[in-house]
Amino acid sequence: MSLDGYVAGPNQSVEHPLGEGGMALHEWVFGLRAWREPHGMEGGEDNASTPVVERNLAGVGAYVMGRNMFGGRGPWAENPWDGWWGDDPPFHLPVYVVTHHAREPLEMQGGTTFYFVTDGVESALAQARETAGDRDVFVSGGASVARQCFANGLIDEATLSVVPILLHGGERLLDGLDGAQLQMECVEAVAAPGVTHLTYRRSG
Amino acid sequence: MSLDGYVAGPNQSVEHPLGEGGMALHEWVFGLRAWREPHGMEGGEDNASTPVVERNLAGVGAYVMGRNMFGGRGPWAENPWDGWWGDDPPFHLPVYVVTHHAREPLEMQGGTTFYFVTDGVESALAQARETAGDRDVFVSGGASVARQCFANGLIDEATLSVVPILLHGGERLLDGLDGAQLQMECVEAVAAPGVTHLTYRRSG
Repeated sequence: MSLDGYVAGPNQSVEHPLGEGGMALHEWVFGLRAWREPHGMEGGEDNASTPVVERNLAGVGAYVMGRNMFGGRGPWAENPWDGWWGDDPPFHLPVYVVTHHAREPLEMQGGTTFYFVTDGVESALAQARETAGDRDVFVSGGASVARQCFANGLIDEATLSVVPILLHGGERLLDGLDGAQLQMECVEAVAAPGVTHLTYRRSG
Repeated sequence: MSLDGYVAGPNQSVEHPLGEGGMALHEWVFGLRAWREPHGMEGGEDNASTPVVERNLAGVGAYVMGRNMFGGRGPWAENPWDGWWGDDPPFHLPVYVVTHHAREPLEMQGGTTFYFVTDGVESALAQARETAGDRDVFVSGGASVARQCFANGLIDEATLSVVPILLHGGERLLDGLDGAQLQMECVEAVAAPGVTHLTYRRSG
């Protein structure tokens, strides 16, 4: 999230899937060994972000994400591509994609299978929970899916990674929540190079 | 600041100088000994917020604030009151108030004198700096004065105290900055009861 609250910049498009300037929100992660390894890249550094990233990924048994984060809008029949993530996506686990467009499961290399869920976020979460068993379900985003989860009190723990840039426009994570409150408290705050990680846990 | 970026709630008025719901942004501070003592109140507790509050107040030689934070709109001739802060304001130092309405300096009990500056934020800062000498100038707010300082690169260090509530409307600190960047990095993040303090320092 930028300091002015955006998780994607303005004018999202195929050229700018995170909106103009939005990639800068993720720059802190690209050089981290803990990020490079699951992406099949060698090298990288360890810093104060490392334990946060490792902890958040360690207990995950399934992912939930929105269609934009998978690969953009359907319908897949007209636009049957396999998403932004390449042949060997970095998830290595089942990923439940919330979309309006039905599609057969898409099995990729390295253990990632995308399942396309057409009956909403809560259904995707329920399927992911069943797959994950005792492990955690990680809601990757985008903003819309995360917002729906917050609005419905479905998040037990959230890490907001705040980057000290201003995007001045785009998509805000916590707008349009219609008077809802999160009922969460900050249990950890970590200042790391280029980012600050705020971890909130449900308090109610 | 609320998690959705507001430093005041909607519908600011004499009854709700911080807007509806805005007082909740400050609840973390009212029970703190480090806040109660300069306000002439006994007791209070110490927690993880204490060193942040004490450090931010320790080196201060003068304050700058907007007219709303002093006491609302002028003209003072028609509305000659002495502000929100009572006979013995908690500043105990010279305070430079940015306003369109000239007024003689207002000397209060306990060392606080309000000076009314009609030629803008930069002039108020310059006067405060001259008064403060080697000590710091503390820009108290409100949002408009702070935003002007950020927009013009006049902030060396800023502590954002983020409260895990959503206000869903009101005044945002970092909106309308017209493409500016802060050029600051987070040097400290402290999770405390009811609030998280993020201290940014100029990096450029």
